[in-house]
Amino acid sequence: MADQAVGDWGLIGLAVMGQNLILNAADHGFTVVAFNRTVSKVDRFLENEAKGKSIVGAHSAKEFVSKLKKPRRMMMLVQAGKAVDDFIELLLQNGAEEGDIIIDGGNSHYPDTNRRTNYLKEKGIRFVGCGVSGGEEGARYGPSIMPGGNEEAWPYVKDVLQSISAKSDDEPCCQWVGDEGAGHYVKMVHNGIEYGDMQLICEAYDIMRRGLGLTNKECGAVFADWNKGVLDSFLIEITRDILNYTDENGTETLDVILDSAGQKGTGKWTAINALDLGQPVTLIGEAVFARCLSSLKEERVRASGRLTGPKPEFTGDKQAFLKNLEQALYASKIISYAQGFMLIQNAAKEYKWKLNKPEIALMWRGGCIIRSVFLKDITKAYRSNPDLENLLFDDFFNKAIHDAQAGWRDVVSKGALWGIPTPAFSTALSFFDGYRTANLPANLLQAQRDYFGAHTFRSRVSDNATYPQGQDIHVNWTGRGGNVSASTYTA
Amino acid sequence: MADQAVGDWGLIGLAVMGQNLILNAADHGFTVVAFNRTVSKVDRFLENEAKGKSIVGAHSAKEFVSKLKKPRRMMMLVQAGKAVDDFIELLLQNGAEEGDIIIDGGNSHYPDTNRRTNYLKEKGIRFVGCGVSGGEEGARYGPSIMPGGNEEAWPYVKDVLQSISAKSDDEPCCQWVGDEGAGHYVKMVHNGIEYGDMQLICEAYDIMRRGLGLTNKECGAVFADWNKGVLDSFLIEITRDILNYTDENGTETLDVILDSAGQKGTGKWTAINALDLGQPVTLIGEAVFARCLSSLKEERVRASGRLTGPKPEFTGDKQAFLKNLEQALYASKIISYAQGFMLIQNAAKEYKWKLNKPEIALMWRGGCIIRSVFLKDITKAYRSNPDLENLLFDDFFNKAIHDAQAGWRDVVSKGALWGIPTPAFSTALSFFDGYRTANLPANLLQAQRDYFGAHTFRSRVSDNATYPQGQDIHVNWTGRGGNVSASTYTA
Repeated sequence: MADQAVGDWGLIGLAVMGQNLILNAADHGFTVVAFNRTVSKVDRFLENEAKGKSIVGAHSAKEFVSKLKKPRRMMMLVQAGKAVDDFIELLLQNGAEEGDIIIDGGNSHYPDTNRRTNYLKEKGIRFVGCGVSGGEEGARYGPSIMPGGNEEAWPYVKDVLQSISAKSDDEPCCQWVGDEGAGHYVKMVHNGIEYGDMQLICEAYDIMRRGLGLTNKECGAVFADWNKGVLDSFLIEITRDILNYTDENGTETLDVILDSAGQKGTGKWTAINALDLGQPVTLIGEAVFARCLSSLKEERVRASGRLTGPKPEFTGDKQAFLKNLEQALYASKIISYAQGFMLIQNAAKEYKWKLNKPEIALMWRGGCIIRSVFLKDITKAYRSNPDLENLLFDDFFNKAIHDAQAGWRDVVSKGALWGIPTPAFSTALSFFDGYRTANLPANLLQAQRDYFGAHTFRSRVSDNATYPQGQDIHVNWTGRGGNVSASTYTA
Repeated sequence: MADQAVGDWGLIGLAVMGQNLILNAADHGFTVVAFNRTVSKVDRFLENEAKGKSIVGAHSAKEFVSKLKKPRRMMMLVQAGKAVDDFIELLLQNGAEEGDIIIDGGNSHYPDTNRRTNYLKEKGIRFVGCGVSGGEEGARYGPSIMPGGNEEAWPYVKDVLQSISAKSDDEPCCQWVGDEGAGHYVKMVHNGIEYGDMQLICEAYDIMRRGLGLTNKECGAVFADWNKGVLDSFLIEITRDILNYTDENGTETLDVILDSAGQKGTGKWTAINALDLGQPVTLIGEAVFARCLSSLKEERVRASGRLTGPKPEFTGDKQAFLKNLEQALYASKIISYAQGFMLIQNAAKEYKWKLNKPEIALMWRGGCIIRSVFLKDITKAYRSNPDLENLLFDDFFNKAIHDAQAGWRDVVSKGALWGIPTPAFSTALSFFDGYRTANLPANLLQAQRDYFGAHTFRSRVSDNATYPQGQDIHVNWTGRGGNVSASTYTA
């Protein structure tokens, strides 16, 4: 058996991402053992893409395990959920032993990764839950990789993961994220932010298209232009390409695509986590809801026949307005990332993970779907002050959002007047205006809660003895009713 | 023992709501047995509020059970969660028997009620999970009551529940809602809508205060005026009272209340459920997030020193603008209820509950926190067409929202320009504009997903053979990369 053990790295799951990660690792000089539940896929892969490379196949879990050098490094790229647990059991039953390392590179939900890390730790096996982003291309030529789990594993997987990862200014976009499900958690927030970025781009496109009457190609030119400035990023770049794409019959493909957005759940998980942690991550929330609304295609078509609105009529300087639109997108994006890092910061507290904000920004800097020049600035902000309370307090972003706000306000107000929906632009602006408000109208809300449910309130003044600070105060607003405070009940 | 059994109705939990419901039931001629874990509270209640009424005390669970006529009707108003399970076990251990009925009138989460209904059904005990809304006053003089669970219980609890409930035009605001946790589910959505209504009022108040520079009393006069029109409701009424409230020292109490909103979770549950069911219930989502943001008081105070915005300067006709503000609130409220009923409609499908929309609207019509004239119109809409796809398709609301939209757009656009946050007004408008749009920009989003992750898209045209409808289509956007579609992986 021992001379069989030629593999540096094992990979299970030969869908797009798995195949590309294997080819990527082989390019970096590692011998990779490839396995797939449907074994015919292994042979097909070996005979085609893998041919002539340092890739060997396995036709059973037993063979897969036996072909790996110890401590074995066994990565899975299979569907999140039951399949991950099944493969873990399969490896345990087929020779995985103490000291081995199992890596889950799929989009697992972080509580599952928490559980698996602890389950395998008891068996002496080090588990790594590893977020991987970059799509096909990223997987092939360098994705962003966010590993977390059992930290003992890190020295054993670091060489391979950092080799195959993207690089940003020579630094690998792969660092140890933290305990348990921290890697998958950060990947989840990444995906939530990706939902937000995509929604913002869609809103900008919709305003160009319906508000300014631009053609696809004209919109494409605007995105091409934006891609040279502060918005320079993978998603703006592919948007430019998509807007310019015409098929062999002369059809602009974008125009035939059904406007019903799919989702696989990671954006939803982020929004739910934000609600659970009580963090106002409004932009991702709106982005997820926008996908939900888009999916009600037939109902919307019926609604379009029953509900009318204004006709957008643009007057004025289009180029100047497009500058405003760029600023609206930029400012909203700053808010979205500020919210995302608020969430991460609170998750670190709540779950007792050491999460390193500059490293996280760096990991997202290259390889992944949200990669951008923007993330370089975020990395810089957190490197110069790792305890930065909020991205909006960093000098660079503080100036950027102040410079952007006039244009941003113009776009949001025009969207409202034109009847073009801007849920993400608008919620970002409302967040900005709420966040910078020392005294929000929530005093009224607390008064209402005390009025109808005796929920009590606190005082915001220090100079009124009737309303001592730091105490729960109830007022008998009506003159009727009791002075009982609600202790166990909310209405 | 048998001659001890004098009670028609038993109630456990003598906090505000419990005490008031007992007094309410006694007023309606029922003999009520009162019990509380801390038994001193029972005596105190009997000697004071309960004195001279048809209320008897119990000093143990055994005594409580033995004092009730069979089949026993035992209602709990205790803190949601473990306390409910504990009391169920306590009743089972102390004489509760087949045929008896246990009613949970607290704010339980509906999955718990699903579980308890099925658990007790196995023991031959009928469980009712019952949403109760109305605060102290409602509980005392007629709350809205939303019972669900084991339908066999309904004939046994109907008399008491309908007697003590609020009435709307002589109809009780209490009807059987549906199986399992359906009652608590509908109460949860009620509370989510309540969050939305309160947030909308806060936004209107903030615009009056900071946008128009009105005093509390002037704002109070506006709400008093609104309370005579389409917005006539309990929450507008108490807002008027709160704005007019001055304490014995001449302090306007509202001004000293800390603007940090509390929440007990039911709004959050509604938003999470909306995300889980894929329904764009954006207004409740924003209302919950607005409470989260309000609670970051100290961070906001720091932010207010670092982030500046425009100074609102109102010019023009204040009275006309206040009319627009009224319309903005009304239109946003229509959207919020339309979204709430979309959620309920989908929950009925998803959980296989028969939920009766006209009855739900009627239950909310009186007694509860969101009671309003508005709900009379909703009841009417669903009674005249129980299969109404969306509230916005009803003639009355369709006309109302069209009449309101010009004013609504004015307010949202001014809020953006003035720097006053309007997360709920804005998201409602974006929903309206998105909902009535046949072709949203989500085609671009689908193109992006296909570009970077080979997620495929569908065609929206029927006349192009390259893009056949109803099929998953993948385009090789770059000319590079493969033609493999992502089957198990999302980037």
